[in-house]
Amino acid sequence: MDRPGWETKITDIKKNEIRIYGYSIDDLMTKRSFAETAYLLFTGELPAKQDGKMFNIIMTACADHGVTPPSTLAALTAASTGAPTNVALAAGILSINEFHGGAIENTMKTLLELEGILKLSELKDIKEAALKLVKIYKSKGKKLSGFGHRFHTKDPRTVKLFQSAEELEISEKYVNLLHRLKDALTEVTGRTFPINVDGAVGALLLELGIKPEYGNAVFIMSRMPGLIAHIIEEKNLQKKMRTINPENYTYTGIKARGISD
Amino acid sequence: MDRPGWETKITDIKKNEIRIYGYSIDDLMTKRSFAETAYLLFTGELPAKQDGKMFNIIMTACADHGVTPPSTLAALTAASTGAPTNVALAAGILSINEFHGGAIENTMKTLLELEGILKLSELKDIKEAALKLVKIYKSKGKKLSGFGHRFHTKDPRTVKLFQSAEELEISEKYVNLLHRLKDALTEVTGRTFPINVDGAVGALLLELGIKPEYGNAVFIMSRMPGLIAHIIEEKNLQKKMRTINPENYTYTGIKARGISD
Amino acid sequence: MDRPGWETKITDIKKNEIRIYGYSIDDLMTKRSFAETAYLLFTGELPAKQDGKMFNIIMTACADHGVTPPSTLAALTAASTGAPTNVALAAGILSINEFHGGAIENTMKTLLELEGILKLSELKDIKEAALKLVKIYKSKGKKLSGFGHRFHTKDPRTVKLFQSAEELEISEKYVNLLHRLKDALTEVTGRTFPINVDGAVGALLLELGIKPEYGNAVFIMSRMPGLIAHIIEEKNLQKKMRTINPENYTYTGIKARGISD
Amino acid sequence: MDRPGWETKITDIKKNEIRIYGYSIDDLMTKRSFAETAYLLFTGELPAKQDGKMFNIIMTACADHGVTPPSTLAALTAASTGAPTNVALAAGILSINEFHGGAIENTMKTLLELEGILKLSELKDIKEAALKLVKIYKSKGKKLSGFGHRFHTKDPRTVKLFQSAEELEISEKYVNLLHRLKDALTEVTGRTFPINVDGAVGALLLELGIKPEYGNAVFIMSRMPGLIAHIIEEKNLQKKMRTINPENYTYTGIKARGISD
Repeated sequence: MDRPGWETKITDIKKNEIRIYGYSIDDLMTKRSFAETAYLLFTGELPAKQDGKMFNIIMTACADHGVTPPSTLAALTAASTGAPTNVALAAGILSINEFHGGAIENTMKTLLELEGILKLSELKDIKEAALKLVKIYKSKGKKLSGFGHRFHTKDPRTVKLFQSAEELEISEKYVNLLHRLKDALTEVTGRTFPINVDGAVGALLLELGIKPEYGNAVFIMSRMPGLIAHIIEEKNLQKKMRTINPENYTYTGIKARGISD
Repeated sequence: MDRPGWETKITDIKKNEIRIYGYSIDDLMTKRSFAETAYLLFTGELPAKQDGKMFNIIMTACADHGVTPPSTLAALTAASTGAPTNVALAAGILSINEFHGGAIENTMKTLLELEGILKLSELKDIKEAALKLVKIYKSKGKKLSGFGHRFHTKDPRTVKLFQSAEELEISEKYVNLLHRLKDALTEVTGRTFPINVDGAVGALLLELGIKPEYGNAVFIMSRMPGLIAHIIEEKNLQKKMRTINPENYTYTGIKARGISD
Repeated sequence: MDRPGWETKITDIKKNEIRIYGYSIDDLMTKRSFAETAYLLFTGELPAKQDGKMFNIIMTACADHGVTPPSTLAALTAASTGAPTNVALAAGILSINEFHGGAIENTMKTLLELEGILKLSELKDIKEAALKLVKIYKSKGKKLSGFGHRFHTKDPRTVKLFQSAEELEISEKYVNLLHRLKDALTEVTGRTFPINVDGAVGALLLELGIKPEYGNAVFIMSRMPGLIAHIIEEKNLQKKMRTINPENYTYTGIKARGISD
Repeated sequence: MDRPGWETKITDIKKNEIRIYGYSIDDLMTKRSFAETAYLLFTGELPAKQDGKMFNIIMTACADHGVTPPSTLAALTAASTGAPTNVALAAGILSINEFHGGAIENTMKTLLELEGILKLSELKDIKEAALKLVKIYKSKGKKLSGFGHRFHTKDPRTVKLFQSAEELEISEKYVNLLHRLKDALTEVTGRTFPINVDGAVGALLLELGIKPEYGNAVFIMSRMPGLIAHIIEEKNLQKKMRTINPENYTYTGIKARGISD
């Protein structure tokens, strides 16, 4: 047949040569980290050193959150029936959607929307624009993502993310917008919601130049180590076809310990 | 009901506190890399600095291999029908099985088998033991994993992996076994097969103390950035429901470039 | 913990008793067909005999369409890497989305939209309402589902579906709306598009009282036999990790034959 | 490129013509049932009338078993996070593996193994051969599939399956072997295990000429209506991201009712 071929701009594979956006993979292997290589694959360019560090911190923040997230429970359920590890992983990933993980992407879109209101309207004042956006969401019955958490009131990941951004001198444009959104939310509802880890991750990904369409994917990639660990624990320690009640588990692992610098 | 609860030893979640194998996540975020945190989740302990670096190099080696691996093609196929990114990712992961990706795990098991032959038998000589194992595989019609590649004869990733292991002074016990296996394979078949990236990764994971049951999972985790990049390229650039012919694509991206140290 | 329990209204499981929407499964097994039981599960009630027959015909119409649909190709790709059958099936199902299979659900929603325009507006005339809807879609750049096909100009399934509906004296309210939509589409675009099998299935599911949210699911359920057959053919006859080029396959099976009545 | 094409023997697609194993789909739609068409896709031939009826009964028997099977729980978990229906279905199917659903395939293989012992050895007596097989399994620590159930001691599906097979005059070769296996199991263990639905389905699929490799797939196909119904109930009635405790649900649906013949 004579159909025209199709194009890809990501990775060039030749005999004994592999180049990602032009960089040879053997160079990347020793000169850059996995997080920096992921960043390259998501944006087409290697990050500045500080940005690469920030991206690595974001990924680590999402690495695991125990057995109760739906993605972990779906993965454990599949594993308990004898699913190979890749299959249990897929079951987990299929449970990372709008209501679990999706808040990152939603926060990113909301922050860009707020930026759009600032640019296009005459509302030069962030505070005013944030109030306008919160009211628009309220009138449409849409929930603002990025605030509140099932467990945590002062999530240690959120604290560390913002603190790291400051130390690494990452731009704080979207972080600032997120805080103004929080203020507006408080003003409109009369209640205070903490910025959650999804909100912080979303704002910081925008600072790094990552687009919203990558938000959910960044979370999934970063959660892989945790999902894998839980799946293999299930296979090794639990009874086959057990009833998995997410409300009656106990952590029986190693006690708190510190990391030497 | 009064069923006994179940246990997990991986991550402890308390209000405003998250600890992975005892280490607080905020410590991990700034004091260790994503690769080191993944290692912690896979082994229960943080790696020595050199081992952490090696693990990071391994992960980067697997980050992408263009559009032709079946996992990428399955992901593109799903994406072309309108699948959300997490769904296309899952379709990709479901195509990482015994014949694609699985060679890492198989190599690991074979190397442990060879180690077992050395320990239990009177064959003190590695060469003899390797020959014995190759003959056992041959007699059973089993294929030895870790040798040969569809595209590459001297895979740049394999070269760099072994070179890095040497520079980082990683132990070379299994790397050595793998080379002896290669010699034995040549002796028995009369042909030379290069050690491929799966073989090298498998041997090095064993050096780092990672168990074979994690082999396929390490590959999947490491391939996530590549899969994500291809999925989003498909969504952004290609026609919906297009016929994906893996034999007529062209790389049209950025030309070769170097990384400044 | 003392959380309130949750409810299900579908199937009651007691010791040695299984009832679906009140009917014992052993009654269903011999007194009703699989298609009728599926209908019960989708609507809460058993279908009238003619409706059950129509639903069975719809399901059969979707049972297979060869190797080129993306769902089949994704399933074959997974199978070629060694995926177990359930896993290859899942990969196939993950490729049944908006642009493949989704036209059924979209057609159903469009027909209800057209019905809504007729009810709410003063447009008592179907023709006028259909024209209005086509123009609304055009102005929004939305594509009307249910018309045109990659291969067929006069799809034998569509022909048989409408003919069966007539013979079984199924109501033709939505079938009629669909034909008026086709007329309006021709009037607006100046081109003729055949009603495709997705369009016919969508209209007939509405006649049977099935809601649009079941549209994609009915297609997936009905396509299972085909997907399964192709997966097992791949496993039994094809080379592992082969390159699957959807443009160079040949049908080499049994020649055309008739069914005795 | 000039690679040789690949072959398929299942479905022939020509313009305006679709033939499954030679039969035109429009003939199948009105002359045969969905179950018979599935049988055709699994074996290459249409079933005898009685066999088609039996296959339909088997499929109906598997249509649903409430909310507690792991496949349903995984599907609900995915659905609770906002997964589209096809995605939640895939999550469910990924939880149908060796320990859930897999007993059908295992029973089929065991029965063929028993048949093999009878054919090849001098054990002309079924009873003796069954005893031998049970002892082989015991010595290897392998569990015999097809016996015992979490809930039911006298599963209504099993009863009806065997009763239907008798009424339809289906051959009872494998059913007989299964009963002898049950006797042998009792003799060896001193305990009585009821034949469960997986065992009955497995034996009857063999009677119909379906191969073991289709066992798990037949179950998955047949469970689709149930999975779909539970997924849509979750989406419509339950709270997003709820904690799904499989131990505290209540059936609140319609009361027991009979089917008019």
